[in-house]
Amino acid sequence: MKLTFSPASPFARKVRIAAIETGLIDRIEFISAAVTPGQPNEEYTKITPLKKLPVLILDNGEVILDSYVIVEYLDELAGGGKLIPVSGPERWRVKSDHSLLQGMLDSMLLCRYENMTRPEPLRWKAWSDDHWNRAWTGMARFENRPETLSAPFNIAQAGLVCVLGYADFRFADCGWRKAYPKLDAFHQKMLERPSVKISAPPPA
Amino acid sequence: MKLTFSPASPFARKVRIAAIETGLIDRIEFISAAVTPGQPNEEYTKITPLKKLPVLILDNGEVILDSYVIVEYLDELAGGGKLIPVSGPERWRVKSDHSLLQGMLDSMLLCRYENMTRPEPLRWKAWSDDHWNRAWTGMARFENRPETLSAPFNIAQAGLVCVLGYADFRFADCGWRKAYPKLDAFHQKMLERPSVKISAPPPA
Repeated sequence: MKLTFSPASPFARKVRIAAIETGLIDRIEFISAAVTPGQPNEEYTKITPLKKLPVLILDNGEVILDSYVIVEYLDELAGGGKLIPVSGPERWRVKSDHSLLQGMLDSMLLCRYENMTRPEPLRWKAWSDDHWNRAWTGMARFENRPETLSAPFNIAQAGLVCVLGYADFRFADCGWRKAYPKLDAFHQKMLERPSVKISAPPPA
Repeated sequence: MKLTFSPASPFARKVRIAAIETGLIDRIEFISAAVTPGQPNEEYTKITPLKKLPVLILDNGEVILDSYVIVEYLDELAGGGKLIPVSGPERWRVKSDHSLLQGMLDSMLLCRYENMTRPEPLRWKAWSDDHWNRAWTGMARFENRPETLSAPFNIAQAGLVCVLGYADFRFADCGWRKAYPKLDAFHQKMLERPSVKISAPPPA
């Protein structure tokens, strides 16, 4: 299997963490890819019209996307129930937590594109404020969600690690550690896991 | 159960179709909601920090999101395998098709926000062109994917209906029927299903 990958992508990081945690990392070849909104990348568009990282390319050529479905795929390949509970209320709590975190990452990337990629005279503060607020109030939601922070390792915790790591990487002055001390403690504990530590984004 | 809903939201439409197809529609109360990027909605942000439609609120107060996870939830509640194949290569093909369609809808909404919601002097054509191109080349992918168009009804087909209906609703001049005749035939056939017909967006 091949995974399109960039060390700067929080979505790709989540899949890398899942691949390590499920023991499948050695079966995956990482293919470097770069995509930027507003810039064509015809070669990559042939792989996925969405022009987004990551996708998983199976040996038969089938393409699996998005990062959530790739994690589901790896989880089932590893026997199931490793990162996503197979039944019960925890199943839906973990999945919904993960969707929220996925949306927070989407909003953080939209902020980043607004503030860095878009030509400066065309930036709209109400847009970036709105999207940053989604990420920030999302963090507050998890600060007050001990059932997420203390669960056995799962896809929602991996997603939360990626949100917090991306905040450090691209919004280093946002002050999330001070505002959310329980997330800080969670993040420090998570960094003891090799999958989390090795996949941390490069220096900004 | 309660579903936050707007007849203009293609994501909410997909859940409505799934609720009808799984026979669960009568157990869901539809709650009208409106969200606009750049405009606060504090009441709705309390339900979901992402400020997006739809979410499903269970009778115990738990909130299920996003539209994909809601469809998964309804599918399992209805016994499983109604809209998402339970195993095999079709499972991953349908899920990946659906992720692609979900991303196409995200891009179409970003185009819409760029061209209608954002103040006119701040619009960036390279951004909206890029996102429209993702939706358009995604349609081309499905035009050439008979295994998606002719499968038993599933979540990917529901997603494709929502993409095409949203194209009619917000991009009426884009000419998708002429460019993609197989999608046109698929769409006409789908409109024979009550779930698809009744959920079509209102006149623009």
